[in-house]
Amino acid sequence: MREQFHEELAGLSDQMVEMTRLVGSAVARATRALLDADLDLAESVIAADERIDAVQGAIEEKSLELLARQAPVATDLRSIVTGLRMSADLERMGDLARHVAKLARLRYPQRAVPDELTSTIVEMGQVAERIVAKAGTVIATRDIATAPTALELETDDDAMDRLHRELFRVLLARPWTHGIEAAVDVTLCGRYYERFADHAVSVARRVAYLVTGERTPTPKPS
Amino acid sequence: MREQFHEELAGLSDQMVEMTRLVGSAVARATRALLDADLDLAESVIAADERIDAVQGAIEEKSLELLARQAPVATDLRSIVTGLRMSADLERMGDLARHVAKLARLRYPQRAVPDELTSTIVEMGQVAERIVAKAGTVIATRDIATAPTALELETDDDAMDRLHRELFRVLLARPWTHGIEAAVDVTLCGRYYERFADHAVSVARRVAYLVTGERTPTPKPS
Repeated sequence: MREQFHEELAGLSDQMVEMTRLVGSAVARATRALLDADLDLAESVIAADERIDAVQGAIEEKSLELLARQAPVATDLRSIVTGLRMSADLERMGDLARHVAKLARLRYPQRAVPDELTSTIVEMGQVAERIVAKAGTVIATRDIATAPTALELETDDDAMDRLHRELFRVLLARPWTHGIEAAVDVTLCGRYYERFADHAVSVARRVAYLVTGERTPTPKPS
Repeated sequence: MREQFHEELAGLSDQMVEMTRLVGSAVARATRALLDADLDLAESVIAADERIDAVQGAIEEKSLELLARQAPVATDLRSIVTGLRMSADLERMGDLARHVAKLARLRYPQRAVPDELTSTIVEMGQVAERIVAKAGTVIATRDIATAPTALELETDDDAMDRLHRELFRVLLARPWTHGIEAAVDVTLCGRYYERFADHAVSVARRVAYLVTGERTPTPKPS
């Protein structure tokens, strides 16, 4: 009985790792769609978000079932409740990747991002992908002490903040010759990537809290 | 024992109503600070966000305690888990009000919003305030059928979307004479109000789901 319960908990964890894989792929492909003005790719990211939502729905249902059936306490209870939060973060990350893809679709056949910001957006996409991959590793291993991930995640988050500032620097450097629409697009894009990274860090922090019982001092999210 | 438990559940509900009151006040004051370039008011909104976070922390702690101690099932279990989600939405709404206030602070003594958008922002602030007040009523009464709130919330959300589109219409109307920085500020502001409303509607939907057991078809959030 206990063993089966812990297998079910491990199953939830596997599904969350699967979610990190799906949203990692989504943000990478959305970035590609944005930079290549690739309509088909953008559409595929938008469509694939349903799958992410479905996994979250399954996690939610299973979690409620386990809470009702097992009446867990202490670590097991905390683990399930935290998992619900993490899956909500991951679902939101899927939404944000979808927003990037929708921006690519909206401006097609034009590119939403001016050339001079290509490298910044490439990097934002890479940091986003990396950070969610590491969050996946943290979930899979639950080993905050030795996994090469916990501090790195903070560093990646700092990298994202730096890129976000760089984006605004370019945007506000005179003269901006790409018009207001492009400025709006770039502003929103930057916000999507930044929020994506915030949620990924939040996922990793929740795992850390589960493992160590200590809350990382959380800087207020942007 | 059961009676005490239900009193504790009611206590959680009261705390969530309190959160709606706090975030409603925060968004109203943040809007005022933004439109009046009122630094003191902006600072007070930023400082007051701690109180919102504290109420959420208390709700979370109490919820976990109740789950562990009472091992609730069925409606009671769903009510507690949904409450955790709702308090997370409300906490995020506090963050978004704080973002508006921080924008006011950043541009002080200038106003972040050009005159021609004043009325749109006034309305966005009013819709945000109204929608969270109604979410509070829904939580307090748990009466989806007769409370004058459920459908109205959707209508208010539509109103917010309309205002958001209006904002972009003004922004992209030629000529925009306020420069790129103001365009960025207005874009972010619009996003903050829109997300605030999304979370408020999400809170109300969760109550509806608790009461009726039926999930409202959820349009994908922006």
